[in-house]
Amino acid sequence: MYLSKLFIPILKENPSEAKIKSHQLMLRSGMIKQSSTGIYSWLPLGFKIMKKIEQIVRLEQNKIGAQELLMPTIQSAEIWKESGRYDDYGEEMLRITDRQGKEMLYGPTNEELITEIFRSSIKSYKSLPQLLYHIQWKFRDELRPRFGVMRCKEFFMKDAYSFDLTDEEAKKSYNKMFFAYLNTFKRLGLTAIPMAADTGPIGGDLSHEFIILAETGESKIYSDKKIIDVDISKYTTKDDSINELRKKYDSYYAVTDDKFNKENFEKNVKKENQLITKGIEVGHIFYFGDKYSKPLKCSVDLQDGKKVDVKMGSYGIGVSRLVGAIIEAKFNNNIMKWPTSVAPFDVVIIPSLQKNDRSNYTKSEKIYNHLKENDIDVLFDDTGENLSSKFKKFDLIGIPFQIIIGSKSTDDKFEFKEIDKKSETLSIEEIKNKILNKRNSN
Amino acid sequence: MYLSKLFIPILKENPSEAKIKSHQLMLRSGMIKQSSTGIYSWLPLGFKIMKKIEQIVRLEQNKIGAQELLMPTIQSAEIWKESGRYDDYGEEMLRITDRQGKEMLYGPTNEELITEIFRSSIKSYKSLPQLLYHIQWKFRDELRPRFGVMRCKEFFMKDAYSFDLTDEEAKKSYNKMFFAYLNTFKRLGLTAIPMAADTGPIGGDLSHEFIILAETGESKIYSDKKIIDVDISKYTTKDDSINELRKKYDSYYAVTDDKFNKENFEKNVKKENQLITKGIEVGHIFYFGDKYSKPLKCSVDLQDGKKVDVKMGSYGIGVSRLVGAIIEAKFNNNIMKWPTSVAPFDVVIIPSLQKNDRSNYTKSEKIYNHLKENDIDVLFDDTGENLSSKFKKFDLIGIPFQIIIGSKSTDDKFEFKEIDKKSETLSIEEIKNKILNKRNSN
Repeated sequence: MYLSKLFIPILKENPSEAKIKSHQLMLRSGMIKQSSTGIYSWLPLGFKIMKKIEQIVRLEQNKIGAQELLMPTIQSAEIWKESGRYDDYGEEMLRITDRQGKEMLYGPTNEELITEIFRSSIKSYKSLPQLLYHIQWKFRDELRPRFGVMRCKEFFMKDAYSFDLTDEEAKKSYNKMFFAYLNTFKRLGLTAIPMAADTGPIGGDLSHEFIILAETGESKIYSDKKIIDVDISKYTTKDDSINELRKKYDSYYAVTDDKFNKENFEKNVKKENQLITKGIEVGHIFYFGDKYSKPLKCSVDLQDGKKVDVKMGSYGIGVSRLVGAIIEAKFNNNIMKWPTSVAPFDVVIIPSLQKNDRSNYTKSEKIYNHLKENDIDVLFDDTGENLSSKFKKFDLIGIPFQIIIGSKSTDDKFEFKEIDKKSETLSIEEIKNKILNKRNSN
Repeated sequence: MYLSKLFIPILKENPSEAKIKSHQLMLRSGMIKQSSTGIYSWLPLGFKIMKKIEQIVRLEQNKIGAQELLMPTIQSAEIWKESGRYDDYGEEMLRITDRQGKEMLYGPTNEELITEIFRSSIKSYKSLPQLLYHIQWKFRDELRPRFGVMRCKEFFMKDAYSFDLTDEEAKKSYNKMFFAYLNTFKRLGLTAIPMAADTGPIGGDLSHEFIILAETGESKIYSDKKIIDVDISKYTTKDDSINELRKKYDSYYAVTDDKFNKENFEKNVKKENQLITKGIEVGHIFYFGDKYSKPLKCSVDLQDGKKVDVKMGSYGIGVSRLVGAIIEAKFNNNIMKWPTSVAPFDVVIIPSLQKNDRSNYTKSEKIYNHLKENDIDVLFDDTGENLSSKFKKFDLIGIPFQIIIGSKSTDDKFEFKEIDKKSETLSIEEIKNKILNKRNSN
């Protein structure tokens, strides 16, 4: 892609309404545009990053055998009345009356609808377990939306639901999701810590929030520092292995505000390991047994003809929120560096271009074409801006690798820089291999 | 995927509410489930097919240089008041009042919002032309939703928008989309005919509908038969080449009902070539100049400092509707055959399984693993149903290739059948190559 063709409206100044760095960066680098309070359009740069995150979330769900489907955004109020949540949910639910006077709503979550799909499709215990998920837009009519995509009204979320015969089986499904979440966040370049959490309006008695440490976070957390060092790469999707991993995590104190108990914290965590900080919630998983299956009469037939309510859990990842969360984690000293797994481009070519000298332009184009042929997604800054403005711009756009065609580049060796690292002078083949190696290690 | 694990609630009988064959097939083969009147959930089988269609639509948009972004589903009423369509649009627009009493709506289309994005981002004529698109859920509060996903309330649509400096340039953008649409439908295995059409509520003076011939269609069409034989493979994305293609199409009479003129039809089309039939609209493109840019004050600066309103067009493809349209075109004599480009699986293994004899199961599993290793997406019917029930089921599911492990298969040669064709006895290598060849030719 040539930068001059890219639809990327970059702002020179921080917009006054943006209070945190992810919101500032997303507006300034033309990733999003507010369309009305708390509702955003995703412009090409932001859209591309969000889609890459979505795809990683999807692949990790598929890996544990979850099946993807898609529920609509608009739901009938009826099933919410069946579950009893229609009145409970409060004003955050966007309620709609259609032209025929029917009560509808924009789904803020999908426990009711998935239960309805399940109960009318699955009749026998033999079809269990089932893990189903979808990635769909949700709406919460926030009174005070803020922090850009971190707390907005219309947001993109992966929500999964598990259906099991017994509590014991259900815990296995819960653990599978627990493991999938850790792998997902790792692929996104994030260290997310699972913390015992309250279940809130979803209900149930077992729940974990996945939290990224960040001073700008809204969740207060209390934890044993050593939990950060748990290495998930040694574990597999086998039930026993995941069980061990769960135990490992459970051996460290790590809770959100709601669950905090000072005495326990001080008893269980050595002074020097006590971590009291803030974090951003990027995932939340729940086990709630028959909370929805009972009122919604979602049961299966057992071998002996008896019926039993299925045991359910639900599992959410905020896909659009993750875009902001990654920025909060990776945007430091006014320089952004996207993890290679979700970077909007693999590499950018930044030439110094003079009006009367086409040589750098020609050189850049040659490199561009060569990388393209090798299936590398490259951006070419073909604009007439001077180098220092270009660098400032790419500090915001955050493409992890840069090829700089200026004084340090010769005819066949070019200045190559990974953000945060010293620049090197490399041939085009060396550059190509570096990028491909880095990409393949994701 | 093992069929016993797949979430695919198959119905034995045609549901009484389904009047046309696509609606019947989609319900019976567990592709969709109605969640409320005119609103559907997409179950794994249907979802997978829709996603493949979406991806083909996307790739053909990218090929002509269109850039993808994503606008939200919920819009503010304000910009619709600016354009004057808020009052015009009628009851099909789902109008919403949020908790703060603000007038919102679920977007039925996005001319206003994209114009708003454009006008606040692009200031200079130098940034033109621009082609922007998104693939997003839309809502039309149909009074009488019917025919399943063909005329429902919540639907998935690709809508693109072009921005140009002059009428002449804008026609080039229009032609590019015209060409992309023909290529898209061809890759989907469809013969779509571009027909001059009325512009309706979108406005403008140039418009084509892309129509698939089908007796169940809602659009009446009048055409010269010979238009079906136009071969698009000879043309390229170059302006001149597309222009020639446009001329070629324009040389044949082909219009929808609104544009029909009996005298012209009889004068221009030989008796034996007169085609009067019905069709399904799968795409619609519009050129409307400054219809939206003028009221919304969407202008760019010219070199001499003057401002000029940009010239716009819009271009829609009904992605969810296409799932139904393909079925209407390909489901004949109670047998469905998905085009390989969008088939839910590349191939299905259908073994005859006996309780006391594991040999066919083992044989099937071996084939399954071998195909999987070769990146072939294969479904294995591991259920205990008898062969004739299995065949009936796969007549509905419509996977284009079948490997039948029954009396005609030996230890290393297997019955291989492409739907509609005679079966052959082939080795696993021959089968693999056949499938890969077919897939690569898409």
